[in-house]
Amino acid sequence: MDIQKLSSAIRDIHDFPVKDIIFKDITPVLQDINLFNGIIDAIAEEFRDKKINKIAAIESRGFIFGMPLAVKMDIPFVPIRKKGKLPAETAFISYDLEYGQATIEIHKDAVKKDEKVLIIDDLLATGGTTDAAIKLVEQIGGDVIAAAFVLELTFLNGREKIGNKSAEIFSILKVY
Amino acid sequence: MDIQKLSSAIRDIHDFPVKDIIFKDITPVLQDINLFNGIIDAIAEEFRDKKINKIAAIESRGFIFGMPLAVKMDIPFVPIRKKGKLPAETAFISYDLEYGQATIEIHKDAVKKDEKVLIIDDLLATGGTTDAAIKLVEQIGGDVIAAAFVLELTFLNGREKIGNKSAEIFSILKVY
Repeated sequence: MDIQKLSSAIRDIHDFPVKDIIFKDITPVLQDINLFNGIIDAIAEEFRDKKINKIAAIESRGFIFGMPLAVKMDIPFVPIRKKGKLPAETAFISYDLEYGQATIEIHKDAVKKDEKVLIIDDLLATGGTTDAAIKLVEQIGGDVIAAAFVLELTFLNGREKIGNKSAEIFSILKVY
Repeated sequence: MDIQKLSSAIRDIHDFPVKDIIFKDITPVLQDINLFNGIIDAIAEEFRDKKINKIAAIESRGFIFGMPLAVKMDIPFVPIRKKGKLPAETAFISYDLEYGQATIEIHKDAVKKDEKVLIIDDLLATGGTTDAAIKLVEQIGGDVIAAAFVLELTFLNGREKIGNKSAEIFSILKVY
């Protein structure tokens, strides 16, 4: 995994979504399949021997990394979606955002009791969504082994926000 | 591609998102990586010799199929997203839904002039989103060669809604 190349490919967009925020845009990474494969291979390598039963990814950018990882590792894929998008019976959890609340859902039959789950998203920022996703998987009986990210903004202390202290938090690129 | 197996894996959910609608739930397909690979291989095979420069997929379920296809074909991936999600400079298009309107966006620098683009989504229903996505790619100079789908609900006549009559419309499974 060429970390320097990954770091260069992620571009800073100033004042998005609001003024004085620098947004980390991963879309250029998706235009370089060799680089993209490096990310997927690095995550697959980290979890190859962890006997993962399900890979769960968080809508929408998590899907972009999660499904190729599921293909690479040959492990079933489970989408975690925003409220109202999943058609079968769901479990849900609401959590606080900087402004307001968000709700995410998972199909109740997507993970069986005690199955080992790896959660994927593109970015670990404040950790609120990750903490909610872990609790959601646990709610339906899953055992969250780890959460993996392409990018971690360490200065936002997202790891501290995550209640499950036994889950491994793995990120390819840390920004300090 | 085992079409019968694909057909069996897609489950009907009654009265979602509203009463009297039968929703085609593709999430069980994502739990069977062998079946999923069959879909990706079938689309890749269809477009192998078409000199595609970019694969563009429509948020969110399109991402689930589009990125693994981009990896398989070794072609750069471009996300088409709902309004307000893409951070760099975008082009956008609004289109009518059954109730109200929707707006989708693409990064202006994601496709270069005259590049050949393949658009991916999970479902061809009424064709409104696909028609808008094709026009959006054309707006930034791309040449849409085709749109590919896992599932087509032929009774909704989505193909007729698509203004670009030279673009190939390819679907793995047709439901009559």
